[in-house]
Order: sequence, then structure tokens, then C-alpha cells
Amino acid sequence: MPPTISTFVFDVYGTLFDVHSVKEKADELFDGKGTEISEIWRRKQLEYSFLRQLMGNYETFFEVTKDSLKYALKQLAIPFSNKEVESLMVQYTSLRAYDEVQNVLSTLKENGRVLAVFSNGSRNMLEPLVEQAGMKEYFHHIISVDDTKQYKPTPASYTGVLKVIGVKREEVLFMSSNGWDISGAKNFGFHTAWINRNHLPQEELGLAPDYTFDSLDGILDLL
Amino acid sequence: MPPTISTFVFDVYGTLFDVHSVKEKADELFDGKGTEISEIWRRKQLEYSFLRQLMGNYETFFEVTKDSLKYALKQLAIPFSNKEVESLMVQYTSLRAYDEVQNVLSTLKENGRVLAVFSNGSRNMLEPLVEQAGMKEYFHHIISVDDTKQYKPTPASYTGVLKVIGVKREEVLFMSSNGWDISGAKNFGFHTAWINRNHLPQEELGLAPDYTFDSLDGILDLL
Repeated sequence: MPPTISTFVFDVYGTLFDVHSVKEKADELFDGKGTEISEIWRRKQLEYSFLRQLMGNYETFFEVTKDSLKYALKQLAIPFSNKEVESLMVQYTSLRAYDEVQNVLSTLKENGRVLAVFSNGSRNMLEPLVEQAGMKEYFHHIISVDDTKQYKPTPASYTGVLKVIGVKREEVLFMSSNGWDISGAKNFGFHTAWINRNHLPQEELGLAPDYTFDSLDGILDLL
Repeated sequence: MPPTISTFVFDVYGTLFDVHSVKEKADELFDGKGTEISEIWRRKQLEYSFLRQLMGNYETFFEVTKDSLKYALKQLAIPFSNKEVESLMVQYTSLRAYDEVQNVLSTLKENGRVLAVFSNGSRNMLEPLVEQAGMKEYFHHIISVDDTKQYKPTPASYTGVLKVIGVKREEVLFMSSNGWDISGAKNFGFHTAWINRNHLPQEELGLAPDYTFDSLDGILDLL
């Protein structure tokens, strides 16, 4: 690992927490359709964050997530109430962390590293999520794009990390399971570790990650 | 139809031409996997145009389309040669127009309307495509985002249309089958007709189209 790296910054959804764990609640509410719903939901959630950024039409990730859920239900022709939507949104603040997360964070912390999360999520989504998982003590900073109203992967969004933590970009190792987020972080100038949980091909964007691991355990080998 | 509308601007892929018609060639080359390939291909093609715009990392749609094809083949674990990729890219300039297109264009032209195409496609994709379909005579302008290096749905991309044609935004009726493109055009200030060929729900972006039709035939009723 380059000796300049002092700061470990983690993406949240899909990286620390399993987004598709909401599908169990969706299965319960909508008659076993949880897998289909959560797949479209996640795809549209990202698409809407990209589109709003491109149109210059920012809205919080909380609203974007709700809108994309509604789209998913409509596309699958599933009737729904606002109450059902709200009860799925609540699930978003009680996602399950992946198995190795706790150990990886505590090891890094013991090694004196600065830890932060950096997410598209609004603060009202991130704070309760990290809190309920008992992980608040590990993080020096919880950084939301909502502070700058710039969604990833714009360079301006990653600049927010530098401003909050007070580091230079070459001091940061950024972890994400999302290939496009790794491309954006690499494009910005962070060191990057792609947590390729789903064994997907590398994005064809000409921005290869510095490291690729199956899980967050891989970064402990860099210490 | 508002009396201000003088100019009819058409999106290309999925609106005038059937993008998934490449799947037959893909079926032939890759053992019946054409449908899967073309679905991922199209999804990644859009995603890569969005991501490159967000990262400030523009590359032509020709390259983006090639990159997204490679990703699709890799995701499906299908071995491929550069020659096979090139032969699929050639298909992109010989897409089939939808059945009603010829009649709609000729009727609008006979009615003295200004017609244009406006696409993410590079000029080396658009010109041969319109030419081979025998539709060049109908269009006063073939406008590519490549002229401004601004992908849809940024407001700057749609501004390119005004500059080339020399009209005001309220004089334009913009047609696209892509909900996100209609949202972007509406956000910019065009009148919009969503050609909802696939009977999808309206995008949850707070930017409803002015008109929605199953095919381009619908716009003839506006005359």
C-alpha cells in the first residue's frame, strides 16, 4: 500500500450494507415479489441520482429512493399504498451489514487509521443506519453528498470528502462495491479498492481500480 | 398543439429506429444469446454516457457503444473477438426504422414543418443510419451531441438544438421513446411527446411529458 494512505473512506450501500436485504420485507408486503422489486428499485435509484445530477435538478437521496421504489412497483404493476412505501423506506435505515464489516473496521481503527463513510445517502438515512449497526464509534466522519448537493461520480462530489476530512486526495483509499463509483473515485484521484462482491466484470470506462477484492477482508492484507 | 410549435425534433435510438434489432445479428454470432446481449448492451450504453458526462470524461457514443458491448459480453461470460465486436457495431448503422416512421416524416414534411434528429449518437453513426433508411431528404438537420460534447439529459446538450436550428425552445416539439430523455427535454423547456412503445410507467422525476403516444402516429393528430 502506498505510504501516503492515511484515510479509509467507505461507500455505504452495497459496500458496508447489503441493499438487497430489503427484499425480505418487500417479499412479505408484496407476495414474494421482493427480488424483482429490489432489483428494479436499486437500478432506478442509481439512474435517478445520475439523471437529476445531469439535469441540474437535485433532490435528496431519500426522495430519489422513494421515487425509484414507486417506479419499480408501477413497472411490475403492483398496487401499493403510501403506508407500504413508507414501511419499505424504514427498512433502508436498518439494512444488514456484510459479515466481515465489523472486524475490518475495528482492525483499521486499532491500527490508528482515519475512517469515514461517504455516500449518496441523505444524512437522515446514513446516521440511523450506522447507529443501529453499532458502528458509529468506528467512523470519524459520516459524509453525505447532500452537504454539497453533488451526486457521485462528479469530481465535485468527491471533493466534499477532502473538505470535510482535511486530507489530500492521494492520502485516501476509497472502497466501493459499485464499479461506477470506483471509476469516479479513480477519475478524481483517490486510491481505490473495488469490493467486487458480485464477481462482475470491470467497467469499460478506462479507469481500472488499484485493488480488487471479493470482500472488505482484502484491505487488511494491505496494512 | 400550441401554435408556437414549428419544429419537430426526433430522438433516434428506440424512437425512429429499433435498437434491439441488432439482437438478430448477435443471435447469429453468439448462439442465440442475442436478447440477453442487446438488453445489457443498451443498459450499459446509457449508463456509460451518463457516467462519462458526470465524470467530465467525454468519449464519443461510438466508443461508448463499443465499450458497453464488450461489458455485456464479459458479463455473460461470452468469449469474443474484435472482429465480432466490429461486425455488431456495423449493425448499429443499419438498424430498422419502426413501421410508421416513413409516413409520419413525409406527412410532417408535406405540412411544411422543420424536421431534425437529435441524438447522443456520433455523426459517423447517425449519417449512415439515416442514409441507408432513405430518410435523409426529410431532415433539415442531423444534430449530434458530439458537436458540443454534452450528453443528454444535460441542459447544455439540448441547447445545441437551438443553436443549430436557430429556434427558441418553445418552438420545438421533441419526440423520444426514452422516458429519461423526455424528462431532460421537458426540464430544458421543449414541448415533449413521449413515444411510449414499451408501455412503461412515467419516470418519477416530476417532469411529466406534454403528450404520450404508443407510436409516432400520435403526433399526426396534433396537426
